[in-house]
Amino acid sequence: MNEQSAQSRIAQLRSILGEDSVLTRPEDTAAFEVDQRRLYHGHALAVVSPRQVEEVAALVAWCVQHRIGLVTQGGNTGYCGGATPDESGLQLVLLMRRLNRVRSIDAANFSMTVEAGCVLANVQRAADMADRFFPLSLGAEGSCQIGGNLATNAGGVNVLRYGMARDLVLGLEAVLPDGSIWRGLKSLRKDNTGYDLKSLLIGSEGTLGVITAATLKLWPKIRSGATAMVAISTPADALALLGLLREHSGERLSSFELLPRVAIDLTLRYVSATHDPLGQSYPWYVLCELTSGTTENLNEQLQQTLALAMERSLVLDAALATSERVRLDFWRLRESVPEAQRHEGVSIKHDISVPVASVPDFIAEASLWVRQHVADGFLVCYGHAGDGNLHFNINRATDGENQAFLAREPVIKRAIHDLVARYHGSISAEHGIGRLKREELQRYASPVQLACMRAIKHALDPHGIMNPGKVL
Amino acid sequence: MNEQSAQSRIAQLRSILGEDSVLTRPEDTAAFEVDQRRLYHGHALAVVSPRQVEEVAALVAWCVQHRIGLVTQGGNTGYCGGATPDESGLQLVLLMRRLNRVRSIDAANFSMTVEAGCVLANVQRAADMADRFFPLSLGAEGSCQIGGNLATNAGGVNVLRYGMARDLVLGLEAVLPDGSIWRGLKSLRKDNTGYDLKSLLIGSEGTLGVITAATLKLWPKIRSGATAMVAISTPADALALLGLLREHSGERLSSFELLPRVAIDLTLRYVSATHDPLGQSYPWYVLCELTSGTTENLNEQLQQTLALAMERSLVLDAALATSERVRLDFWRLRESVPEAQRHEGVSIKHDISVPVASVPDFIAEASLWVRQHVADGFLVCYGHAGDGNLHFNINRATDGENQAFLAREPVIKRAIHDLVARYHGSISAEHGIGRLKREELQRYASPVQLACMRAIKHALDPHGIMNPGKVL
Repeated sequence: MNEQSAQSRIAQLRSILGEDSVLTRPEDTAAFEVDQRRLYHGHALAVVSPRQVEEVAALVAWCVQHRIGLVTQGGNTGYCGGATPDESGLQLVLLMRRLNRVRSIDAANFSMTVEAGCVLANVQRAADMADRFFPLSLGAEGSCQIGGNLATNAGGVNVLRYGMARDLVLGLEAVLPDGSIWRGLKSLRKDNTGYDLKSLLIGSEGTLGVITAATLKLWPKIRSGATAMVAISTPADALALLGLLREHSGERLSSFELLPRVAIDLTLRYVSATHDPLGQSYPWYVLCELTSGTTENLNEQLQQTLALAMERSLVLDAALATSERVRLDFWRLRESVPEAQRHEGVSIKHDISVPVASVPDFIAEASLWVRQHVADGFLVCYGHAGDGNLHFNINRATDGENQAFLAREPVIKRAIHDLVARYHGSISAEHGIGRLKREELQRYASPVQLACMRAIKHALDPHGIMNPGKVL
Repeated sequence: MNEQSAQSRIAQLRSILGEDSVLTRPEDTAAFEVDQRRLYHGHALAVVSPRQVEEVAALVAWCVQHRIGLVTQGGNTGYCGGATPDESGLQLVLLMRRLNRVRSIDAANFSMTVEAGCVLANVQRAADMADRFFPLSLGAEGSCQIGGNLATNAGGVNVLRYGMARDLVLGLEAVLPDGSIWRGLKSLRKDNTGYDLKSLLIGSEGTLGVITAATLKLWPKIRSGATAMVAISTPADALALLGLLREHSGERLSSFELLPRVAIDLTLRYVSATHDPLGQSYPWYVLCELTSGTTENLNEQLQQTLALAMERSLVLDAALATSERVRLDFWRLRESVPEAQRHEGVSIKHDISVPVASVPDFIAEASLWVRQHVADGFLVCYGHAGDGNLHFNINRATDGENQAFLAREPVIKRAIHDLVARYHGSISAEHGIGRLKREELQRYASPVQLACMRAIKHALDPHGIMNPGKVL
């Protein structure tokens, strides 16, 4: 596109969306042209921020007419470059931040309707003020937007009990790739009228449409809870502890996070206001939390289960959170691992899952591989072990050299992902595909699945307007 | 198709599937050419029952080649004619009953893999024998098949706690409309690698492919429970009781069924071994059940909540199930309503849902309409009120006349469904669309949704092989 036609298009956009909704100056657009991990640096024709769904629809219709690719962006907290434009200067970045109203809360129906640009923490807060609980919770909740959470089917720390983002949605409003508005904001628990378009859009990472609003499920507010940091010898003991907690506490078990000592060490070293949770150092830790929407003595329940686990030598040591402050300290250790890893230096990350029962074997085999093949790196393997989801990250060793280390990233990823495939696992448990794992998906997904996805993509978005070059 | 070409096709089918897998004699095929409500009487080219997924794939490929429509049938217990062939004699009925193996159970991973032809009760039993719980439960569980449950996204009595069939599935194996086999039997809790084909196939009623096997989620076995039959004055009191039970028992509340006195009367009249559950007659009843995977005194908990509800005049009377026999008696009253209605005579049925908080208003307004407009009928409105799902059925009055009554079915359905639409409800909460509600779907679904569904159908099944004439 030459400069003149670019200017004419921007003028058209301004006439559709209004002057102040179309950003083009580099100082205004730069933050939206790079992903938060700084893996991708794109260049957009413009960054646009409409105010309502009808404007989004008009924008999409315009994009179809002019064959302009549209990259929808929420809080720009994704890990896979799914919300970053390419380098062509021909794509638009669509910001959802002005569609940020909580449209309604129906406490009796345990549901609320929010616009895509609502920051997740604000959604949680609005639910809380209505004496209800919205369970989606993750590290970026202060800046990520619910629309992005849904587009990527976000996971987080409460999946064990409440499921992924897809499981938390009753209805959607979305602009489809032909510019039509699908007004599917139902608040029904049961509805068997046709194909599940909602689940299809959720997790499609903006490639099948733009989610503009959602009706979310709410739960009774949490009235009791208990949290413990537990020291264990091995991931196998973690699995046995998980079984015991399930047996004694059933669905009250809402989080079960596995941490190796090295993750605690890094966090203590680089993140302020963190404390070693137990008197001494242990090989592995489990951060577990029970919650209930009714009044119960969960501390006693958790204590009893942990005592039993100690008798059975599954648990080496444990500390119950005796106050909300201590509880937040425990969670800070867990949530700060990515930050600590960044401070330590470059790393090679894998967001993978295997069947829960295979977690110990997988960790053993994959760790051995890292020890044998990555002399200039060390493993930080932690995550939502209760769901089988591990963040399997390899940091450069202190005496290693960035370039040499990162040069081997493709080889290392290949080996780890091949191992994941052998365990019938997933190469992207919760972060999605985006741009980062597009080639990986081609390798690990079955040809039948890919053909099916392409057929759906082509049927709904024949001109390839929606987030081009992502996922497929 | 002339007789000669029909014979040649049947010979081809026999060479693909084997002699004994292709039924053509009327006495062998008749049972599969009519739906269980006897609304549709079809005529098939043949009824085929392959033994394995590869045979299903070969069959579909053959159907594509010869443009033969394929109607997949499970236990033939559907309410909407979705598994019945048309009258042309050109479609095939595909029985899944020989694909009936439990392929594996992984208790530690809380999952099991079963073939589509497994009878639901057998799936429940297999889970139970592995000390696990599979929660899908409905009246037809002794004969319906899990493949049909998934194809129609079945609901049942445990949706309140565990969700619909779609929510109970981790992975699928299916034959797609081009004859390819999608081997998607993952047993992962978290997997964000591409579009959610699983949710798309589930609930598509055989129009997008043939589900041949599924990996199902399991839960801890139920270790405590409490069941009560509760008498109340109005549906509004039922809603208040639901709130109270949620507050006191949280997710332990697994069933909350609403029954009007007339449903109890009909059941007592027509179904053997049923007993009036309380000392006298009351306007409405709630059958509620608490369950837990851990050992708890739920009887005491339920009793306390009901006592509180009585103090607040929400509950008129209540009986706790003091033994498993009494519990089964209570459930027999609930599960026998459809049978009792059949004995009473013809009826006009609606399987609808509204937001849970709107249930009382909807019942009031819809009941008034029935009283004012259907002099020759009486209402039996019951169902899964905890999910907002009502079976809103109108029986012919004793002194009414079948033909005149049924002649008004379209007018009555239109009025009830229009009212449902006004309440932002669903015209098919759990039974699906099939053939029965195809025109209704055209009326009540948005043009955008329908266009999107048609685009997906055409993309995946361009020759219209899969269950032609159903849903769309």
